[in-house]
Amino acid sequence: MVAAASTSKPSELTVPVNKTIHAFDKASLDALLTRRFFFAPAFEIYGGVAGLYDYGPTGSALQANVLDAWRKHYIIEEDMLELDTTIMTLSEVLKTSGHVDKFADWMVKDVKTGEIFRADHLVEGVIEARLKGDKEARGVKEEEKKEEDDKKKKKKKVVKAEAVRLDDNTVAEYEYLLAQIDNYTGPQLGELIRKHKITNPATSNEVSEPVEFNLMFESNIGPTGHIKGYLRPETAQGHFVNFARLLEFNNGKVPFASAQIGKSFRNEIAPRQGLLRVREFTMAEIEHYVDPLDKRHARFDEVKNVVLTLLPKEVQSEGRTETVQKTVGEAVAQRVVDNETLGYFLGRTQLFLTKIGIDSTRLRCRQHMANEMAHYAADCWDFEIQSSYGWIECVGCADRSAYDLTVHSVRTKQPLRVQQRLESPRTVEKLECTFDAKAFGIKFKKNAAMIKETLSGLEKDKLQCIKDELAKGNSSVKCTDGKSYEITPDLVKIEPITVTEHMREFIPNVIEPSFGIGRILYSLLEHTFWAREQDAARGVLSLPALVAPIKCLIVSISQDSQLRTKIHEVSREMRKRGIASRVDDSSATIGKKYARNDELGTPFGCTVDFATIQNGTMTLRERDSTAQLIGHIADVIDVVDQLVKGSIDWEGASKVLKEYSGVQDVEA
Amino acid sequence: MVAAASTSKPSELTVPVNKTIHAFDKASLDALLTRRFFFAPAFEIYGGVAGLYDYGPTGSALQANVLDAWRKHYIIEEDMLELDTTIMTLSEVLKTSGHVDKFADWMVKDVKTGEIFRADHLVEGVIEARLKGDKEARGVKEEEKKEEDDKKKKKKKVVKAEAVRLDDNTVAEYEYLLAQIDNYTGPQLGELIRKHKITNPATSNEVSEPVEFNLMFESNIGPTGHIKGYLRPETAQGHFVNFARLLEFNNGKVPFASAQIGKSFRNEIAPRQGLLRVREFTMAEIEHYVDPLDKRHARFDEVKNVVLTLLPKEVQSEGRTETVQKTVGEAVAQRVVDNETLGYFLGRTQLFLTKIGIDSTRLRCRQHMANEMAHYAADCWDFEIQSSYGWIECVGCADRSAYDLTVHSVRTKQPLRVQQRLESPRTVEKLECTFDAKAFGIKFKKNAAMIKETLSGLEKDKLQCIKDELAKGNSSVKCTDGKSYEITPDLVKIEPITVTEHMREFIPNVIEPSFGIGRILYSLLEHTFWAREQDAARGVLSLPALVAPIKCLIVSISQDSQLRTKIHEVSREMRKRGIASRVDDSSATIGKKYARNDELGTPFGCTVDFATIQNGTMTLRERDSTAQLIGHIADVIDVVDQLVKGSIDWEGASKVLKEYSGVQDVEA
Repeated sequence: MVAAASTSKPSELTVPVNKTIHAFDKASLDALLTRRFFFAPAFEIYGGVAGLYDYGPTGSALQANVLDAWRKHYIIEEDMLELDTTIMTLSEVLKTSGHVDKFADWMVKDVKTGEIFRADHLVEGVIEARLKGDKEARGVKEEEKKEEDDKKKKKKKVVKAEAVRLDDNTVAEYEYLLAQIDNYTGPQLGELIRKHKITNPATSNEVSEPVEFNLMFESNIGPTGHIKGYLRPETAQGHFVNFARLLEFNNGKVPFASAQIGKSFRNEIAPRQGLLRVREFTMAEIEHYVDPLDKRHARFDEVKNVVLTLLPKEVQSEGRTETVQKTVGEAVAQRVVDNETLGYFLGRTQLFLTKIGIDSTRLRCRQHMANEMAHYAADCWDFEIQSSYGWIECVGCADRSAYDLTVHSVRTKQPLRVQQRLESPRTVEKLECTFDAKAFGIKFKKNAAMIKETLSGLEKDKLQCIKDELAKGNSSVKCTDGKSYEITPDLVKIEPITVTEHMREFIPNVIEPSFGIGRILYSLLEHTFWAREQDAARGVLSLPALVAPIKCLIVSISQDSQLRTKIHEVSREMRKRGIASRVDDSSATIGKKYARNDELGTPFGCTVDFATIQNGTMTLRERDSTAQLIGHIADVIDVVDQLVKGSIDWEGASKVLKEYSGVQDVEA
Repeated sequence: MVAAASTSKPSELTVPVNKTIHAFDKASLDALLTRRFFFAPAFEIYGGVAGLYDYGPTGSALQANVLDAWRKHYIIEEDMLELDTTIMTLSEVLKTSGHVDKFADWMVKDVKTGEIFRADHLVEGVIEARLKGDKEARGVKEEEKKEEDDKKKKKKKVVKAEAVRLDDNTVAEYEYLLAQIDNYTGPQLGELIRKHKITNPATSNEVSEPVEFNLMFESNIGPTGHIKGYLRPETAQGHFVNFARLLEFNNGKVPFASAQIGKSFRNEIAPRQGLLRVREFTMAEIEHYVDPLDKRHARFDEVKNVVLTLLPKEVQSEGRTETVQKTVGEAVAQRVVDNETLGYFLGRTQLFLTKIGIDSTRLRCRQHMANEMAHYAADCWDFEIQSSYGWIECVGCADRSAYDLTVHSVRTKQPLRVQQRLESPRTVEKLECTFDAKAFGIKFKKNAAMIKETLSGLEKDKLQCIKDELAKGNSSVKCTDGKSYEITPDLVKIEPITVTEHMREFIPNVIEPSFGIGRILYSLLEHTFWAREQDAARGVLSLPALVAPIKCLIVSISQDSQLRTKIHEVSREMRKRGIASRVDDSSATIGKKYARNDELGTPFGCTVDFATIQNGTMTLRERDSTAQLIGHIADVIDVVDQLVKGSIDWEGASKVLKEYSGVQDVEA
């Protein structure tokens, strides 16, 4: 860990210290996080299980504070309807949503040892190793490719490279293959494995054909064995199945949003990367329901000047990664971002992430390319945060269109629709579908209802196209399952009618910001970690007071009993005000006590000394600068209270309290 | 629903209204809870699944507020170490804790239809129906037995009674059987079923022999199928497996406590009783680690005067249910409650439950009788809350002794112990066990380590007894698995030794207060529900401001645009202060708006009217009394802020603001 280039005289420092100048040392951070129990492998004394972590007192407090900030930023400030729905989910619900059929990864087995690999990771790891070996054989230094590899790194399983030169065509083929690795189906991965003779790197044994492995944990509900359940892979479906009740709660009007914080589960084939890819994780999800014809947002103006760092799909499809800075207002006006509501949430999320301490220079919004987006999605942006693992998706903001509500509505025959009374009745020319129910049923069987629903719900223009095509022979309709169905004139008549409408009925579209809390927490810890020149062995976590696990340390200059009494008085007063503070009355030196709390990210420290007894004063230390102020105990507590609430900053505090430079801060 | 005996002039009422005088109408409450979406069956549009419920916006907010109060009352105020451990738990952990083998209920199947029953519930239901039929045949009215049945009611499956007279011996036998119903093993229940010819009441078909059904949801972790996991049935084991890290975090000292709020799961055979017996639920658990030789509590004096309503085991074993009121101090001094720490948590919990609104007259502490307590527990008290389902366990306070830490330590060979440096070295006479390792291994195999650990850990007195018994022949030792093992002189020598000790080592005991949040919430809703004389169709939930989902309603007397602007100004100011408020700008009458918010438990309501424009005043209404005060907008908001924070009560508010009686409160 490279130490900070700060001077040893605390009071000379400016606030805040520029932390970006320090090289990041992951091993030191990892050691700190384990030693101070931010998190640790679950069931560690039993040997642990990959992908399951427990949060200790510091990690839990940090998480609770981040979630509290989230709840205030979104649920309270935007009057969202909070939900707490079950984790155990009826299989039928997830069948309808598509998870039972599609929420899977492809895996292969070593045919002799049975070791299991995620098929794409295996292919990627082996091919990357071969390319690396080729580079070594050609004498090209690895660094040159480093930046380019950044994104791939997060998925790479380390496979040892051998310096073997490949012919140029093979190199080109391999590079194309890696660029496409996310797009291959299981059978295609199988072909690649055979074609390129990919084996288990550890044993050189062949591997099996790829088979699908569903990532949901499965269980039985009740004793019969007939009711299958899955642990939810996202909280979203719990919102959608409750839509009718939520709409009623909101007096039948859109737009409104539901929000939920809770655990979700993904039974990853081979989890790695610490908190970034785990089997159980806390999510915070918002489902914002809007009129599909009006995706404006009433509070758009409040975020239109927020600056986003955007990586649009057009740039990526040219193989480039340059970002562009735009305000939310510009991005929506230029149609880079599809609509106001999506733009609004991008702006709000930028504000949230930077408020809790994410470094805005290591934050970008990457748009999904057409081939990675769910077929029903209208537009999708990921907030990616850069850490030592590369750029990692931490928040997804998707326009899920009317997909989920439509499929649940079709499956359950419950109307998940908004009815809007028109101000005055209107006469409209419409196209009406009249189905030959019997012929429809025979041809489409269980899909008949879905196809009818889709056809009836089409906008007039699209229906006119189908009508025209049917007049010439046949046509087709694309449904919510992503498939197209051929329709012929004997199945459906499409005729113009004139109707007087008093009500408008529609299925709302859903804009979904979805937060992976563990990923955000881990990124935050990396972004705020650094070390002082004077004490390189101990790190500092420059967490904002808003989320720091403990807000204020309370210590005395000596073990004197009068001073000990004082610190407990101070502690009681802080507790009464709801300031999460901690007394350290151990025999360690002041410097050591400060250093121990710098590691926990404690932003402020109060010290009582003999002047306290004489003058009733106490000093106040700021973590990042180690600057100190002094004042009467009651005034200092007042200042701490305001600093923690964010109503003043350190500069403001310096106006209320006097500068102090009497005590050496850091241990010799 | 019987309406309240209140007058129609709001300002004449005293606060709070005595709500206990109103008869409770469960059907009305249930209708309210569903209509206003406190909670609803999960996947309702898919037909739902028994024992799974979703919390809607009101229920979620109520729950969030109760949990926030809990976190402040316990974690913050007592400086507990919070944890967030995984729900998915490695099977080995729950094997060690005993859950894999013992966490089961007995079930029987209808041999023809396959319908499944919990064996004890079936026996109980049928026998109760027969006794009821006998009473009818004898002409005894049901009411007389009502109170006595209260506790049983919560488990009863409704079986139709036929008026058949039984002979007196059978009645006595049946009554004895019911009194013992919780104590029968599966095979004993099977015998009872055969002896008393108990069949499926719906079909009269015979039922199968009882088989054990483990109540944990099972799943596989990862793709191999070799790593079995269970959804945790309690959060406690997540604390224990992290004990070594927690102890280190607390600088190696006890006492300290860890705390966790999270979901747990029990795959009930046949859930019923709404929120009281569910398959997925939120728990809040504290594990307080103490020196087994010193269970005093530093803050005991703070709760010693708290009055508890106690139902000790001695009273129950005589078949009686009279409670006795004692202060915590008396209960511990008289050894009714085993120790100070357990007493401390009983006191703190009494304070917590009444603070959030539980009626103290419907709250009691019932001690576990010897036969219902886990074999390792030293003492156990349940806080039971009375509702329409009878007296229901909502919080368990158990002294789990050193059981859990010992079994995990033995299984994993990790020391889960506290080391205490002695102030001065001491010379002690001890008894030392010397084992014949080989003979021990041959005789006890996999249990050898556990038995050695137990013997070595025994107190001197007990070890002396065993030594004496061994001198006469053989002895036995009771281990953490609840079984006794015979030991003989060839296996172990127990000899006195003199040692100089610098350290004392011990496995701490654990005092565990464990809260079922859903049960507490439901009881709270029953305790605070009533109706006004003027509007019997709509109920009132007299939730304390501390936990009410919304704290303040903001309305205007008319749809006038100036007034509408004002209410949004008031709303903005309240939001800025963090007061969860809601504007109702619909066209409903004021009375209706108030009534709609009384249903949600909203304690305060602010109304702007034309005086607001002229004088800048606003009225403030109190939910229970419907009393109104008036003052300048800023002053009213100030008062609301203080009322919500609990720094003043309504009487205090009446001193700051003027009385107001200008507006008719309730809709005509």
